[in-house]
Amino acid sequence: MAEPPPTPYLRVDLARLRRNVRRTAERAGSARVALRPHVKTHKCLQIARLQLASGAVGITVATIAEAELFARHGCTDVFIAHPLWVDERAAGRLRDLAAVATVAIAADSVEGAANAGHLLGGSGVEVLVEVDSGQHRTGCEPADAGAVAVAAQRSGLPVRGVFTFPGHSYSPDARLSSARDESSALREARDAVTACGIEVRVVSGGSTPSLAASDTEVLTELRPGVYVFGDAQQWELGAMPREDIALTCRATVVSHAGGRLVLDCGSKVLGADRAAYSTGFGRLLDHPDARITLLSEHLAVVDLAAAPPPPLGSQLDVVPNHVCNAVNLVDEIWVQEAESLRPWRVSARGLNA
Amino acid sequence: MAEPPPTPYLRVDLARLRRNVRRTAERAGSARVALRPHVKTHKCLQIARLQLASGAVGITVATIAEAELFARHGCTDVFIAHPLWVDERAAGRLRDLAAVATVAIAADSVEGAANAGHLLGGSGVEVLVEVDSGQHRTGCEPADAGAVAVAAQRSGLPVRGVFTFPGHSYSPDARLSSARDESSALREARDAVTACGIEVRVVSGGSTPSLAASDTEVLTELRPGVYVFGDAQQWELGAMPREDIALTCRATVVSHAGGRLVLDCGSKVLGADRAAYSTGFGRLLDHPDARITLLSEHLAVVDLAAAPPPPLGSQLDVVPNHVCNAVNLVDEIWVQEAESLRPWRVSARGLNA
Repeated sequence: MAEPPPTPYLRVDLARLRRNVRRTAERAGSARVALRPHVKTHKCLQIARLQLASGAVGITVATIAEAELFARHGCTDVFIAHPLWVDERAAGRLRDLAAVATVAIAADSVEGAANAGHLLGGSGVEVLVEVDSGQHRTGCEPADAGAVAVAAQRSGLPVRGVFTFPGHSYSPDARLSSARDESSALREARDAVTACGIEVRVVSGGSTPSLAASDTEVLTELRPGVYVFGDAQQWELGAMPREDIALTCRATVVSHAGGRLVLDCGSKVLGADRAAYSTGFGRLLDHPDARITLLSEHLAVVDLAAAPPPPLGSQLDVVPNHVCNAVNLVDEIWVQEAESLRPWRVSARGLNA
Repeated sequence: MAEPPPTPYLRVDLARLRRNVRRTAERAGSARVALRPHVKTHKCLQIARLQLASGAVGITVATIAEAELFARHGCTDVFIAHPLWVDERAAGRLRDLAAVATVAIAADSVEGAANAGHLLGGSGVEVLVEVDSGQHRTGCEPADAGAVAVAAQRSGLPVRGVFTFPGHSYSPDARLSSARDESSALREARDAVTACGIEVRVVSGGSTPSLAASDTEVLTELRPGVYVFGDAQQWELGAMPREDIALTCRATVVSHAGGRLVLDCGSKVLGADRAAYSTGFGRLLDHPDARITLLSEHLAVVDLAAAPPPPLGSQLDVVPNHVCNAVNLVDEIWVQEAESLRPWRVSARGLNA
């Protein structure tokens, strides 16, 4: 067993991670939908391999650089799930990628699809048309999906299907209802593309909060990411119970100033995320009533409710609000299995482009 | 000139950076106070060297690992400005550090000081007693500074002085008044330590927002960090004008979905910081009325006010809310000087422990 590193460090409970991976794979399998997990959450080759071994059809990534990294290490079916503006350099990278992997990109406009096709037509890269199902970020209106698909197809990019990210599931009020919006947007988009004479092979959606309600009559593919670890957002949304949280930040009590409990973990290891519905800047795994009330770069001030503060020098497990941003801050995560603790490299850390 | 990297990337205007470094050094010089800049903001050897060359007496860091990195590269006077819980391993690292550098650590409790002294006494490591001046994070009450200093001294750690971080300067209402709190807390702490028969050689404070009001009659040392780059927080607090902002995130327009302006920079390059007073998740350097209204990991949705949205594929300069967290997300920053663009390594990135 490796000596634990000095705090703060991110620690993974391997049994919980494996259970989360298996359960979601089984749920997808029994609903007869494909699972294409988003690896931006973990950025870790070992975890992508666990997901593929449990039946995932491929992976979802956010950037070309993530796609390159995972493809280079044997994950050879990748979908880059954000609209890119493809310039000459990006086209060169995507062509190289398509020579060694099955690659799909996103398009949410006629102009973007035509531009991508101009530079990538004939490369084998496929397109999924993104539609907005209620998050109001990227994605065209479902009714416009046909025009985007036609633009892609005409410029030499085969259309695989349609997709959405129901990101408005990150809200206590809309967690499950967002899955209805997802279903209706995807159905309309699918029909619009089909009406243009283009076959829709994949109808893709999914997010960890809405997963339990995903309409697998309409969707053929799910792309959740956070489910492997869980985090305080999922806990507070009611999407994952505390018992399923597989990643925590190990931190040391460094101050009792003013009667406060201050830990040596801040936004440089937890991330600074605080959603509108979050009750603090993070939680404590073993103190469900505690909240991080003040977070600076290297320190967290904790309101422990009525509990007596643990002594200086003792260690606690902090649950980050948003695990994807926490993992992206460290070079390795420390994986615990029984008495063994070993580092796994966050190989795709910082691959933003 | 190196080819610019694909977006998103962080770009530094070297002329502005040099001007910010020089101006703050001159202000400290003319007030006859020492400048010990906090290098957590940039984590970059080249910038620490600029600061030292312009007259800084040493550097401030947040962690032992930062201290080790900078000391190894010639910055041999370091102050670790957070209370540490010193265990055997930390003590070994600090002893090694003290063999090659001048090292000071923080203490804010009798117990913490005694524990550190037990393991570090005689190593040459010095102590500054931290006091709370209004942020209510770490730091003992000013009246208790004497007891902490006595505990340190008795256990073999020479006391250098007292310090505070007036972090409540990060508020539009308290930006300058926090400097008065800082002054009175430090004066009281200084007198309390002196009354115990311990000489106070250094009275240290400072933060970028409060810098203009620092009481240099009481303070002998300033430790600002953010002033080298500026960010949207400083801009919105009125602490640094837009014209002084030296670091931006270069980003590409990737979507016009729903008439929105969507850029390819998200919280994985800007950080997720959003202070209570912030008007959004970041600003645009050349569009002062624009706000980032929605930020996800790889995308920013911008409200451009009345301006027409720039075309797909065009590039814009985004000002992160909190530059320290943005810089800590990337392996290099791209330094622009006239036509030259070259990468500087963020050498201390991720050194949280």
